[in-house]
Amino acid sequence: MNNYFGRHFSITSFGEIHGVGIGIIIDGCPSGLDIKIDKIQKELDRRRPGQSGISTSRTERDQVEIMSGILNGKSTGAPICMFIRNINVDSSKYEQFRTKPRPSHADYPAMMKYGKYVDLRGGGRFSGRITAGFVMAGAVAKMLLELVNIKVAAYTRSVSIIRDDTEYSETEITDSIENNSVRTVNSEIAKKMEQRILEVKELKDSVGGIVTCLVEGIPPGVGEPVFGSLESSLSAAIFSIPGVRGIEFGLGFKATEITGSQHNDAYSIKDGKIITTSNNSGGIIGGISTGMPMKFNVAIKPTASIGIEQNTVNLDSSKPDKLKIEGRHDPCIVPRAVPVVEAITSVTLVDFLIGSGIISKTL
Amino acid sequence: MNNYFGRHFSITSFGEIHGVGIGIIIDGCPSGLDIKIDKIQKELDRRRPGQSGISTSRTERDQVEIMSGILNGKSTGAPICMFIRNINVDSSKYEQFRTKPRPSHADYPAMMKYGKYVDLRGGGRFSGRITAGFVMAGAVAKMLLELVNIKVAAYTRSVSIIRDDTEYSETEITDSIENNSVRTVNSEIAKKMEQRILEVKELKDSVGGIVTCLVEGIPPGVGEPVFGSLESSLSAAIFSIPGVRGIEFGLGFKATEITGSQHNDAYSIKDGKIITTSNNSGGIIGGISTGMPMKFNVAIKPTASIGIEQNTVNLDSSKPDKLKIEGRHDPCIVPRAVPVVEAITSVTLVDFLIGSGIISKTL
Amino acid sequence: MNNYFGRHFSITSFGEIHGVGIGIIIDGCPSGLDIKIDKIQKELDRRRPGQSGISTSRTERDQVEIMSGILNGKSTGAPICMFIRNINVDSSKYEQFRTKPRPSHADYPAMMKYGKYVDLRGGGRFSGRITAGFVMAGAVAKMLLELVNIKVAAYTRSVSIIRDDTEYSETEITDSIENNSVRTVNSEIAKKMEQRILEVKELKDSVGGIVTCLVEGIPPGVGEPVFGSLESSLSAAIFSIPGVRGIEFGLGFKATEITGSQHNDAYSIKDGKIITTSNNSGGIIGGISTGMPMKFNVAIKPTASIGIEQNTVNLDSSKPDKLKIEGRHDPCIVPRAVPVVEAITSVTLVDFLIGSGIISKTL
Amino acid sequence: MNNYFGRHFSITSFGEIHGVGIGIIIDGCPSGLDIKIDKIQKELDRRRPGQSGISTSRTERDQVEIMSGILNGKSTGAPICMFIRNINVDSSKYEQFRTKPRPSHADYPAMMKYGKYVDLRGGGRFSGRITAGFVMAGAVAKMLLELVNIKVAAYTRSVSIIRDDTEYSETEITDSIENNSVRTVNSEIAKKMEQRILEVKELKDSVGGIVTCLVEGIPPGVGEPVFGSLESSLSAAIFSIPGVRGIEFGLGFKATEITGSQHNDAYSIKDGKIITTSNNSGGIIGGISTGMPMKFNVAIKPTASIGIEQNTVNLDSSKPDKLKIEGRHDPCIVPRAVPVVEAITSVTLVDFLIGSGIISKTL
Repeated sequence: MNNYFGRHFSITSFGEIHGVGIGIIIDGCPSGLDIKIDKIQKELDRRRPGQSGISTSRTERDQVEIMSGILNGKSTGAPICMFIRNINVDSSKYEQFRTKPRPSHADYPAMMKYGKYVDLRGGGRFSGRITAGFVMAGAVAKMLLELVNIKVAAYTRSVSIIRDDTEYSETEITDSIENNSVRTVNSEIAKKMEQRILEVKELKDSVGGIVTCLVEGIPPGVGEPVFGSLESSLSAAIFSIPGVRGIEFGLGFKATEITGSQHNDAYSIKDGKIITTSNNSGGIIGGISTGMPMKFNVAIKPTASIGIEQNTVNLDSSKPDKLKIEGRHDPCIVPRAVPVVEAITSVTLVDFLIGSGIISKTL
Repeated sequence: MNNYFGRHFSITSFGEIHGVGIGIIIDGCPSGLDIKIDKIQKELDRRRPGQSGISTSRTERDQVEIMSGILNGKSTGAPICMFIRNINVDSSKYEQFRTKPRPSHADYPAMMKYGKYVDLRGGGRFSGRITAGFVMAGAVAKMLLELVNIKVAAYTRSVSIIRDDTEYSETEITDSIENNSVRTVNSEIAKKMEQRILEVKELKDSVGGIVTCLVEGIPPGVGEPVFGSLESSLSAAIFSIPGVRGIEFGLGFKATEITGSQHNDAYSIKDGKIITTSNNSGGIIGGISTGMPMKFNVAIKPTASIGIEQNTVNLDSSKPDKLKIEGRHDPCIVPRAVPVVEAITSVTLVDFLIGSGIISKTL
Repeated sequence: MNNYFGRHFSITSFGEIHGVGIGIIIDGCPSGLDIKIDKIQKELDRRRPGQSGISTSRTERDQVEIMSGILNGKSTGAPICMFIRNINVDSSKYEQFRTKPRPSHADYPAMMKYGKYVDLRGGGRFSGRITAGFVMAGAVAKMLLELVNIKVAAYTRSVSIIRDDTEYSETEITDSIENNSVRTVNSEIAKKMEQRILEVKELKDSVGGIVTCLVEGIPPGVGEPVFGSLESSLSAAIFSIPGVRGIEFGLGFKATEITGSQHNDAYSIKDGKIITTSNNSGGIIGGISTGMPMKFNVAIKPTASIGIEQNTVNLDSSKPDKLKIEGRHDPCIVPRAVPVVEAITSVTLVDFLIGSGIISKTL
Repeated sequence: MNNYFGRHFSITSFGEIHGVGIGIIIDGCPSGLDIKIDKIQKELDRRRPGQSGISTSRTERDQVEIMSGILNGKSTGAPICMFIRNINVDSSKYEQFRTKPRPSHADYPAMMKYGKYVDLRGGGRFSGRITAGFVMAGAVAKMLLELVNIKVAAYTRSVSIIRDDTEYSETEITDSIENNSVRTVNSEIAKKMEQRILEVKELKDSVGGIVTCLVEGIPPGVGEPVFGSLESSLSAAIFSIPGVRGIEFGLGFKATEITGSQHNDAYSIKDGKIITTSNNSGGIIGGISTGMPMKFNVAIKPTASIGIEQNTVNLDSSKPDKLKIEGRHDPCIVPRAVPVVEAITSVTLVDFLIGSGIISKTL
């Protein structure tokens, strides 16, 4: 049940980074959708490591295989299983982490939960690689959102303390983020972010950052009450991405510092449509969409795998020990998290939109 | 399904602020639990408005009625229904909000979702009063946590920009927060917070703040993978509290500003037990508990109901209009959110602990 | 979770026969439904014992109380909680069943599951009285079905070996079953059934029977694949009624005795509409409706409470013992099961119809 | 959600008979289980067609591939994905069924639900071939049941009107059913059943029958109340098998013909253990196990695919039409349903046993 998410358009995640491959099943995709494999592949490529000097140079070739649910290029209404195979995996260097758990990796809690048979090779199920599954499902979800003119665009708001608090439209985001390796909007800031990442890479260290996600086109009245609120569902989805440490909607934590009169979004009318003159609520009030753009920030921690020697404990001897993580790792996963945040957000929104009848079950 | 939360120890919420009353059903409470009604009542009293000058002076007498599931003071294993009745409700002044929706209240999105028959009296289901149900369920959950020596304590970390970033133990929190009206730990800071709240009250305005929740005693290995992670479940639960705009675990958004070598929690051994020398992860890695105290912050927006005149739209005439919200409202709901955060956290954790066998189904 | 059923129109059951009362919560009722309390009351009265000489003479006055979700006679979209209070309960004679479990009652397995604190007074949660909750929810479901011209009608097909295998239309059923105390269609057969029940009553014994349920008006294409099939959902719902021992769709077990060429339902066209010339499938193929009337039989066991002395075991002494159940009990619950089968069927179908968009979420 | 079943040990089904292959994912398999691939293969072989003259001579080579969740022969606690590939599929002859739906096949209702893009090749998702996935999951479930000495054994009780109502023990069933092609216990009756099947095969017709399932070793107290009862869950699972038309527990429909004094199962003591002297309840009362063997019958309809010409409707012309189904089809699927009933029963029971702590989550 824990590898399963959603109600109307639900996904089941499976696979490990050093196993056969990574897969995802969509249950509830409307029938008759024109499934463009190249779009799925494109999203996978956006998530793939080794895209630039700031990313790990491991080469994973992530080629999507359709295992079920599609016939003559159209979804049939049956579960869609998509799979990518792992190649050239070397698990030898991971065996030691059973004895000497890596700080801020799931090695230790995972062994406490699952016992000694847990798969820790490369992080097993705890690796960020499982998000390749989310990205495949997200690509299909985006095709459905396109039908109803809803657009999801994420970008890197900050890397370490280099931060861009300008607010952008979906078009501004989409038009710019693939032009730099950090997936941020402003090209000057991009350079500073890249430089910061290269600095920490040099030091065998890492940094985190913030991803902002913007959704345009959601009509008012989408959402569910109480435990099924948009925030509850989106946050549950977002926290399934390894490394996420926080989420805030609209002004989020900043809203706590201002007064109600500053924070409240007054209603107005524009072109015959009800709008709010500010959007501090980030498009969601009472768990339901207001019709304004949806907006939230996601905090991503610095990569736990660093080349610097770290203190740990030897579980065999129960004595303090040292650990040095070899190999090449992303000094900053934030740019690669951008398509993942878009993907899982798209999946979650399609779930709501099918549930509310805005996306039809038969196309 | 949206008013239902949990898997092993699940809750169903019902009732409206201006209806008959507010209720909650617990499904899956272990049998044989000594249900202390006075403890439920005490938690309800903590949540109740009108406890001090900084809170609304409405008097709601919230007396818990047990409707099912308890026999001779013990839980029977059957669903436990608890209910409080609403008294002295005056719904007359809410009728206008159907025409002139209140800024940053759910009036408008709720009408867009449910149509004109939605109950908007006092906010209906969108009122914070539904959290009285969470508090009743949380009180039962706390009784179960006590059996396995797990303690949940929340406090007010900030009100507006008055903020206390000292980290406290569960005992420090529990021993101090009921000594001041804002439920913060440090009594000096409490005074400043109270003063700030009285200032905005005077101005018919409002403020928000941050609640920090600390959980001590969770053994390592509790949690579920991917979509069932502790963070996914806790965040989904927390966002069911009206007014919550963000959640962050451990260092949260601050983690994005430091390096991996600063953020990683090194393992060590203390008294024969594996610990981490820092706890930037807030006791959760990979969705699973590390055995260190669990810690998260919750951002609560300034109360949407303010006495200052606001801009809105008249839905009948489709023209801009003005709105003034009469009546007495909490200028800051943060102190009252403290027991609510504790409650829903306790409910969520008991769900995990029953699922993992740490709390037995038959006591 | 186990007292919860459904996805779009879901119900949560609570309460015990000798507790405060019996309740049900509907989560997901469309807003704007005209809730006719007298129709709910009428269904409760149909289920109520003491309606005739063949039923127990206990008088339960089951008066529905609306606790939430309805405003000015209309559903608001919020959870609808309905409750009936228990009156004049005498639990004294049930204490002995903790020591000497009643044959074919849940006393023994319930104690093995829940331990000694389980509520066994009158059968606690295992009493058929919990179906009063189903009936209240079913009454609301029927109001929704009426909007889309779907009709659910059940009747007593057999009592003991007195059986009527004539197939009837919904109108024939509805027009006749309230004219006799056994809720069967044919008045001559009704007399024989009544006589059979009086015979076993005289002997302090009991009998069971079969309830047939017919649903007219379901369009083709309603249902879900595999684990969400109409049969899977309906059977899960039906087996929640205490005393049910079997369910069969269409020809059911009889289908196993004939050949494919006899059993297959050939397609034809009538008045421009696709029909099948026979309906051995009972309106469901592949888990999905065919557009023909839905039809299934439900086997109900003879009442376990009989006045005859029975063998049991004394759990204190671990020795064989005798038991005599005092008090008045239904010698045959089949006629009272008829409205319950209708109710839970209606609830299940509304769940599918909201899910498939045939019943709208906002009326 | 509809291709997903279970809570603690849950399965997700995917794949089509004429697609890439058929798969199943187990979510929640305890870690550390010794996964014997040959046992999975053996169960697949039992389900495979072409095992004897009475079965279809199509040769499907169903070789299990492990896609995830297993490392060094042990389950890791991660989702286990198993897959078999389809080979030599010829979909050409199925295209006509879009225009002329086959009687008592899902063609017509499926098109009404999913529209024209539904995959009807070979029956698509509606083919019995999806049960190969159930069988793979069931093989893993059986390995878990073995650890707690629970045995699940099914057999053919009847084929057409040839029926064996003798009651057998698990050992008697297991020792005999693989010795004849119909998987019944008594070898004389087996011959009659085989002959009956050959007769209808000759006539290009088909027959159905009844599968009985027996479970030995379930301790008392396993089950959940109301909607989570053993009967509710087992029946929901069983009805996911294509062709099932009924289920009855214990005496089932026969219980309706006898009196309470005949039907009630008196308690007694044997070897210090509480038993019932009869087991008309089939090991389940109140939705909870009594500790006696669990027993239920499953009605399976005659194969819908027959070689005899049938009446149907041409959906293009909206005129009556004739249809002749070519190819080789099982004249009776009952013997092949035996391992499928065992499989899905095992999956369902493991779900309950993990939920109740009898099977541990870490082995």
